[in-house]
Amino acid sequence: MPRPTLEFWFEFASTYSYPAAMRIEDAAGVAGVDIVWRPFLLGPIFKAQLGLGDSPFKLVPAKDAYMWRDLERVCTRHGFAFRRPSLFPRNSLKAARLAIVAAGEDWLPDFVRAVYVANFVRDLDVADPGILAACVIEAGGDPRTALAATELPATKQSLRDATEEAERKGLFGAPSFVTEDGELFWGNDRLDDAIAWAVRRAE
Amino acid sequence: MPRPTLEFWFEFASTYSYPAAMRIEDAAGVAGVDIVWRPFLLGPIFKAQLGLGDSPFKLVPAKDAYMWRDLERVCTRHGFAFRRPSLFPRNSLKAARLAIVAAGEDWLPDFVRAVYVANFVRDLDVADPGILAACVIEAGGDPRTALAATELPATKQSLRDATEEAERKGLFGAPSFVTEDGELFWGNDRLDDAIAWAVRRAE
Repeated sequence: MPRPTLEFWFEFASTYSYPAAMRIEDAAGVAGVDIVWRPFLLGPIFKAQLGLGDSPFKLVPAKDAYMWRDLERVCTRHGFAFRRPSLFPRNSLKAARLAIVAAGEDWLPDFVRAVYVANFVRDLDVADPGILAACVIEAGGDPRTALAATELPATKQSLRDATEEAERKGLFGAPSFVTEDGELFWGNDRLDDAIAWAVRRAE
Repeated sequence: MPRPTLEFWFEFASTYSYPAAMRIEDAAGVAGVDIVWRPFLLGPIFKAQLGLGDSPFKLVPAKDAYMWRDLERVCTRHGFAFRRPSLFPRNSLKAARLAIVAAGEDWLPDFVRAVYVANFVRDLDVADPGILAACVIEAGGDPRTALAATELPATKQSLRDATEEAERKGLFGAPSFVTEDGELFWGNDRLDDAIAWAVRRAE
């Protein structure tokens, strides 16, 4: 019987996507679930759903302050390093295109984790092609080929398509997880529930 | 040594406050933590923070649809009955004033749970004094005295004070939990973390 799969929809600017990206492969692996890495952009979705051009956290200072404190606690609980970025949200377009380019490549998961660590631990600007090239190298990819491919119309279109697919599937935030039977789970807090759902559906 | 306490800030119209209210006494009891039940109103806080006169879920249909599905899953996981109310959000002012009146009374926790069950299981209008009287009776209180007390200026002021205190403490949603050292936790998902924090601080 084929192993169950779980779509992991992540946005590089999303704070809670960081701990989810760091732990999803191990958590899914233990459960016998394969992860389908799905980069997308939240910007167009927030714009369509809320008319916003910025992070929704910035609407409510109390919620923004809470989120950073909570994220720190969550990372401590999971054993992940964390430093609040000096700039938030950082532009994630180029990084997302790189993840599209890396679809199906062995270096994709390590690249995704490297970008999150750059942003949320090392406080580096993940919109910078130099920083991103370093992440590709760290993951074992070829930075020149990969960065060139982010400029291809097909790459740009593929990311737009992914973002539209996310909206069709009911996504409104990240990280989100979608099972093969279309069940949606939102938030790092729901990762284990999503994996358990994928396993039950496959039984 | 005195037992640690944890403030439980709840709003009767809040969906995720329902499972939190149903399980908090057992979860805290096992850990040796005493709960301080803190009714408040989210309406004035949403109005001040977001300029909203309605539930923020209604801003984003995709998030609203997800919330109801997720709440159903969460209730199933905890073993709590759930039926989506035919009206949402229901006016919680009178119920919150009753919870203020019941402060320190033995029947407060059972009353709170009865109101949540009326709203989120039995689909009853918890703005209706007759429904609320039935909840008071079920909890072992005297409905005539309690309902009369909701009209006292001191009761109304006490609820306004609680809501202002909630905002001062950084609350922006419900359920929320505040430890004695001021640590804020938001959401049913954070109840166990909040209890663990309260226990650690007391050690």
